[in-house]
Amino acid sequence: MECVPNFSEGRDQQKIERIVEPFRKAKNVKLLDYSNDEDHNRLVVTVVGEPQPLKDALLEAIGVAVEVIDLRSHKGAHPRMGAVDVVPFIPIKNCTVDEAIDLSKEVGREIADRYGIPVYLYEKSATAPHRENLAAVRKGEFEGFAEKIKQPEWQPDFGPACQHPTAGTVAVGARMPLVAYNINLNTPDMEIASAIAKRIRFIGGGLRFCKAMGVELKERGITQVSINMTDFTRTHLYQAMEMVRYEARRYGVSVVGSEIIGLVPMEALVDTCSYYLGLEGFSSDQVIEKRIME
Amino acid sequence: MECVPNFSEGRDQQKIERIVEPFRKAKNVKLLDYSNDEDHNRLVVTVVGEPQPLKDALLEAIGVAVEVIDLRSHKGAHPRMGAVDVVPFIPIKNCTVDEAIDLSKEVGREIADRYGIPVYLYEKSATAPHRENLAAVRKGEFEGFAEKIKQPEWQPDFGPACQHPTAGTVAVGARMPLVAYNINLNTPDMEIASAIAKRIRFIGGGLRFCKAMGVELKERGITQVSINMTDFTRTHLYQAMEMVRYEARRYGVSVVGSEIIGLVPMEALVDTCSYYLGLEGFSSDQVIEKRIME
Repeated sequence: MECVPNFSEGRDQQKIERIVEPFRKAKNVKLLDYSNDEDHNRLVVTVVGEPQPLKDALLEAIGVAVEVIDLRSHKGAHPRMGAVDVVPFIPIKNCTVDEAIDLSKEVGREIADRYGIPVYLYEKSATAPHRENLAAVRKGEFEGFAEKIKQPEWQPDFGPACQHPTAGTVAVGARMPLVAYNINLNTPDMEIASAIAKRIRFIGGGLRFCKAMGVELKERGITQVSINMTDFTRTHLYQAMEMVRYEARRYGVSVVGSEIIGLVPMEALVDTCSYYLGLEGFSSDQVIEKRIME
Repeated sequence: MECVPNFSEGRDQQKIERIVEPFRKAKNVKLLDYSNDEDHNRLVVTVVGEPQPLKDALLEAIGVAVEVIDLRSHKGAHPRMGAVDVVPFIPIKNCTVDEAIDLSKEVGREIADRYGIPVYLYEKSATAPHRENLAAVRKGEFEGFAEKIKQPEWQPDFGPACQHPTAGTVAVGARMPLVAYNINLNTPDMEIASAIAKRIRFIGGGLRFCKAMGVELKERGITQVSINMTDFTRTHLYQAMEMVRYEARRYGVSVVGSEIIGLVPMEALVDTCSYYLGLEGFSSDQVIEKRIME
């Protein structure tokens, strides 16, 4: 199981190390990556492990975060509703979405019991459709939750119906592996990048599992369609690429390249190769590294 | 380190199991695959492991092969010069070509010492340019080696200058991972498939690390350019695909698909995605499975 908890601390390296420490020392848990951003004032941890030890390490790290983070004085560019802002569980190997959902509920209940923090289940763990989208759950942020949490439709799934004074609230849920995928355009025109982004994304009538926005790459003098592929097994990377390519054509603009940010499951690469090479009957079981891992 | 020893026994399942057994029971060695072909009368084993235990298991398996295989009564479609025909070492993870060369020489010397079999170093381990190509080394096969081995330019690298009465000779060497890659054409015309194969392969003036031939897929009524990519890190899969595509155009023929036979290193997939998606700065370190494995 993979877990990518987001903590609202991106500046104090000492606090960051303390939050990360439980993952580092846990057995049967592997800290794959952690990166903090000072502007966002946020820490994103990527960790994998067996469900039980992962849960234990996570609860310990959350305890540290609750102790060292005070949201009343927290400022940053990224929206947040809690010291531990969001805890997504992602099934990556020999485990199912249902197991990820179960684990998210166990962890959610435990966060509420142990630390008195209200917990919202989101995405695949959500208990109502209006709670699926993390942006909708988080709307209002820490500052607005004192009021929001009183509304009947925003009662938390676990814990008290009033937010923790310094740690706010937390969203916990299971989701598919998300691939952060950006496609660069040979135009500095943000209107074009945004128009293409709107056209390819789900809410604009585009691809089912695709979120997108236009972004300016100032130093390079170009723009980018910045994409989150929320389920690459059903909306494929190549579909985003080919759709951006043909939408760009309308403006006389070309794709100059793309980038995958952070980690990506091997299955997404296999899928991309299968499309572009027209591979027949290829399976990721043929990848040497996968066989060795098994 | 990976090793893909080829043994000249493809029919007697009991003998095959005995040959494979040392890889199965060895510690720090993993038998990834073994497959035998009755027409070829040949067994291909794919095994990975730490160099030292890999060497030990290999020498034990070779001992079994020498004991159970008698080349004097061996018939099969595949050319062969020994009971243990060829032993390629392939650096796949945390090891270099030089280490593969060193290991191949150690093993070669040991085969000669322990079993009295003449050993030829080939490919990257070759001690002279005319010994690099396995087909050149093997030419004459078991039946012709009694004479060939007497020629000054075909003195073995290790062992006696006369072949083993039942086990013949053996080629040992380091090579890059080989990717068996076939591209299917929507034509039943073998002349077209062969013409394209000749055009794209190294000896025909095509791609440096590419061997190719035309093959008929009778049941499907189509043909295939059957390719061995002998160093996919320098001649890329997409180059073969794109070259076949534009050569086929000359005949009004199209590529209908392709297939990767057997195992493929993840790096080859990363490379393919990087080309077709125009990925900037992508590294295989971003693949979750690779990180987990580490």
